[in-house]
Amino acid sequence: VTSGIAVLPLEGMPELRDGDDLGALLAESATRAGGLEHGDVVVVAQKAVSKVEGRVIRLDEVEPSTRAHRLAGDADPRQLEAILRESARIVRSRPPLVIAETRHGFVCASAGVDASNSGGAGTLVLLPEDPDGSARLLRDGLRARTGRELGVIVSDSFGRAWRQGTTDVALGVAGVPALLDLRGERDPAGYELKSTQIAVADEIAGAAELVMGKTRGVPAAIVRGLRLAGDGRGQDLVMPADRDLFR
Amino acid sequence: VTSGIAVLPLEGMPELRDGDDLGALLAESATRAGGLEHGDVVVVAQKAVSKVEGRVIRLDEVEPSTRAHRLAGDADPRQLEAILRESARIVRSRPPLVIAETRHGFVCASAGVDASNSGGAGTLVLLPEDPDGSARLLRDGLRARTGRELGVIVSDSFGRAWRQGTTDVALGVAGVPALLDLRGERDPAGYELKSTQIAVADEIAGAAELVMGKTRGVPAAIVRGLRLAGDGRGQDLVMPADRDLFR
Repeated sequence: VTSGIAVLPLEGMPELRDGDDLGALLAESATRAGGLEHGDVVVVAQKAVSKVEGRVIRLDEVEPSTRAHRLAGDADPRQLEAILRESARIVRSRPPLVIAETRHGFVCASAGVDASNSGGAGTLVLLPEDPDGSARLLRDGLRARTGRELGVIVSDSFGRAWRQGTTDVALGVAGVPALLDLRGERDPAGYELKSTQIAVADEIAGAAELVMGKTRGVPAAIVRGLRLAGDGRGQDLVMPADRDLFR
Repeated sequence: VTSGIAVLPLEGMPELRDGDDLGALLAESATRAGGLEHGDVVVVAQKAVSKVEGRVIRLDEVEPSTRAHRLAGDADPRQLEAILRESARIVRSRPPLVIAETRHGFVCASAGVDASNSGGAGTLVLLPEDPDGSARLLRDGLRARTGRELGVIVSDSFGRAWRQGTTDVALGVAGVPALLDLRGERDPAGYELKSTQIAVADEIAGAAELVMGKTRGVPAAIVRGLRLAGDGRGQDLVMPADRDLFR
């Protein structure tokens, strides 16, 4: 049973604000959970990262454009304006729902703009400007505080084409691989594997979601026992358009 | 730390053949791993289920059609013929790659037909005819042998639109919810949640993949500590076409 993994919620985090030292707060919560170990991956909800990075806007400061009014239908056009500003491209829309490609290349509902868990009515949380940079900073901060070599994943809940429900995926990654490349490896019978890349960072983010929970206010989790060597980036998980047969 | 989950590989399973009692073999492996507990979810790779259900075909028994020749490019047209026979609809193709919708409604590469880990050169493994039925049978078999109330998920590795790499998802589900519906629930600040359904069965399948591994011949895992009440189906995860904005 030593080859398994454990997923532990990081509980007791305070309501987060712009400028809070998220690394310190995560380290304190981890200490209460028994401490961090070498090789642990700390998964942090995007919303927690965005809040401490000040990526929160007030609806009453947003002036909606004509296009935002058109996409909003009966919904608040200011929210659609915020989504448009975060979008490089609108992929699909059915007012007031929008699937957009963000400047990072992520394709997701509302360009990642979210009103829930935003810390108050009338505010919206945007995705971090640079989730890989956010993950790296948190990894460095946690390493400095704990002396542990860790991975960090900044996660968010994304919908999928053809499947119901969201799963948590990795937007930012540091200190752990994003993709596991099995190209050229062989199965136990010696047959070369065809399905060659596993999005392990997305699977780790999804595993962490199972103990986090949107309604319980648990914004982070530890995934322990993975034994994955390497240092990937969330950007590794963005499919180049010309290779995307699903598009 | 009592609120976390554990993911444990089920090791030492033999090479599987048509007619093997997979429930018995899983129960034996679980006993070696310390036994099953109430509420455990046993995740089993689709390929293991397909093999014991006889969902394996020999390439030399497949007569390729004109269409299969056309889709194959330089690849083996018999493999494309097998894919066509498993498909309700071809979603995308770029010879020899095919994204297809299966008769179950799953959209995936090669309609789930796979040559790796098939147990020998010249054979292909097809998806189970009824993955929810397979999950239910395994759940009943494991319950009869162990006396435990369990969940079972039959999993497979699927690619995603817009994202690199595969993640494991749930094709068949029994004894555990497939979707967690948060509609109407509120975040800690009292704000009603917008992203309302979480595909927990897919996240559980992905968590299990992290300890299974295609090259290590570990076809199953236990996910422990979830505390999810309910009984979903893999079909709950198939998005009705008219609701799919990502399509």
